Amino acid sequence: MEKETTIYDIARLLNLSPATVSRALNDHPAINSNTKQLISNKALEMGYRSNTFASNLRRQQTKTIGVIVPRLDSSFMSTVLSGMEKVANEANYNLIISQSLESSRKEMANAKTMFNSRVDGLLVSLAADTDNLEHFSTFFRKGIPMILFDRVMPQKNCTNIVIDNLKAGYEATAHLLGQGCRRIMHVTGSVKRNVYADRLKGYKMALLEHGLPVEDELIRLTDFTRQDGLDVADEIARMPSPPDGLFVASDLCAASCMGGLRKNGFSIPKDIAVVGFNDDPIAQLVEPNLTTIHYPGQEMGEIAAQSLINHLNGLLRISTTNTILLNYELIVRESSRRV
Amino acid sequence: MEKETTIYDIARLLNLSPATVSRALNDHPAINSNTKQLISNKALEMGYRSNTFASNLRRQQTKTIGVIVPRLDSSFMSTVLSGMEKVANEANYNLIISQSLESSRKEMANAKTMFNSRVDGLLVSLAADTDNLEHFSTFFRKGIPMILFDRVMPQKNCTNIVIDNLKAGYEATAHLLGQGCRRIMHVTGSVKRNVYADRLKGYKMALLEHGLPVEDELIRLTDFTRQDGLDVADEIARMPSPPDGLFVASDLCAASCMGGLRKNGFSIPKDIAVVGFNDDPIAQLVEPNLTTIHYPGQEMGEIAAQSLINHLNGLLRISTTNTILLNYELIVRESSRRV
Repeated sequence: MEKETTIYDIARLLNLSPATVSRALNDHPAINSNTKQLISNKALEMGYRSNTFASNLRRQQTKTIGVIVPRLDSSFMSTVLSGMEKVANEANYNLIISQSLESSRKEMANAKTMFNSRVDGLLVSLAADTDNLEHFSTFFRKGIPMILFDRVMPQKNCTNIVIDNLKAGYEATAHLLGQGCRRIMHVTGSVKRNVYADRLKGYKMALLEHGLPVEDELIRLTDFTRQDGLDVADEIARMPSPPDGLFVASDLCAASCMGGLRKNGFSIPKDIAVVGFNDDPIAQLVEPNLTTIHYPGQEMGEIAAQSLINHLNGLLRISTTNTILLNYELIVRESSRRV
Repeated sequence: MEKETTIYDIARLLNLSPATVSRALNDHPAINSNTKQLISNKALEMGYRSNTFASNLRRQQTKTIGVIVPRLDSSFMSTVLSGMEKVANEANYNLIISQSLESSRKEMANAKTMFNSRVDGLLVSLAADTDNLEHFSTFFRKGIPMILFDRVMPQKNCTNIVIDNLKAGYEATAHLLGQGCRRIMHVTGSVKRNVYADRLKGYKMALLEHGLPVEDELIRLTDFTRQDGLDVADEIARMPSPPDGLFVASDLCAASCMGGLRKNGFSIPKDIAVVGFNDDPIAQLVEPNLTTIHYPGQEMGEIAAQSLINHLNGLLRISTTNTILLNYELIVRESSRRV
């Protein structure tokens, strides 16, 4: 194994004291700039690595933040990660990422790895089937801060960062009602997750407020795959009394469903008006362009990372904020515009 | 600062020797299972963290792999990352990720951070304007392995993982020629990057082979944004003799260009046949479905991570393989099917 270059090696080669080398590398004003240049060139040449790693160990800090997400290959999650990386990078933190692949069992294993890697804090969005936060209890007991984002669960001393999914679900449905729809189908995901449970509640609220019945037949729980979208379209085509409005809690699935509906002879928005969720790039690329809820993924990532780093730096304790709500926006496009 | 729980603390509380505790936690056969259970429960209760971190430091390993990509919020890159995470996680490596945002300056800063974080190895896809690999020289001199993927550059002892972009560009263009197109436009990105330069070469080769001229007017260098796609469509509409075929080296940009062409009254594929690149989910969601080159992102991520880990474990030296070529596939859909 190659030996690590130390400041003592540099000092010996340059006939300087180790103190001078150390000061020069830390840009101390007492060292003149020629000497600094000489020392820094030699350090580079010898492959010297700053001792951040060891000194972080002494301070019991690793300057790393662990991130656990359901899936990395998701358009929404990639914008969240991009926001987190931007903030973490500027604050000299490293991001360690892992994915649960929607499995609570893998999420537990990931949490354990993060714990043993001694991350300074955690940013987590929960897997589809996670029932409780017991697997994070080692973090809570040690006082290692954790922030939940998007797919959250109430937990003492642990901030949740979300949008108001209930209100967003309500607005999406109310928009369809405003376009004259009277029989609205809702396609959603695992109702164990707040995001889907709340959007469903909002959908029901809007119907009830307009004196319309909530029909089980019109609520579909799916995994939001492309195939799920096509299957829903085929189901709709077989219904004796098909819906005239469709609210899908995912743009990708809404887009594939639209394709399936068209193949089944439905005209959008005339026969059936469609609203998605997230405002993924796809929303502006399908024809007709998809009405959707703009979900601020980049901002969510930035705020989650910044809140955690502020907490770590003692600038703002996350235990004092229970929930951070971000703004969302209903964006009306051609897929639902009927009046 | 809270004191870290050690095996000595656990031993004292249980009236056992530190050696017994250490052996139990490492699942040594000499310790009976009841004792192991007792010790492991106590360790959990006291928030004991395995000393992976410190022992990795002693071994000069961090069990982390650094990943630098141009952008995190890209459909293609998110599938690559998903593949890397899968393999790294199974091999007990952590992934530290950062993005250059297509800037060579930020890529340099990221490289420095990764170096000081003492990653065991690097997986890199280059920024749009990176001219050389000088900023990775500290890694090369220290023998820290690096693998370049997708956007690569030849470098001694450094494996490149790519698809044959020249051949793929040739096939995309030859397919359009086979559909009767005789005036084919190519929309691409920074030709500093192998992926775009090679696809352009393939495009030219196919034209020359069919006795057709290569016209500068028909080659556009863009950033592949949605707006770029719309701009290209408007330009085409203004041309006295518009192209009858279009090969765009990015699906997202191809999809937005198709939307713009339709708004300008072009029928696809009748007036102009379109081929994209990557096989992003969008390709099967736009109408007409987009013909494209299927790029195996998940597999590229898995192979890059596995090759690096094999090298780190002494199973396969990456210096012996210069380039790993992955298979791609031309997938013909409605956007180009004319015969």
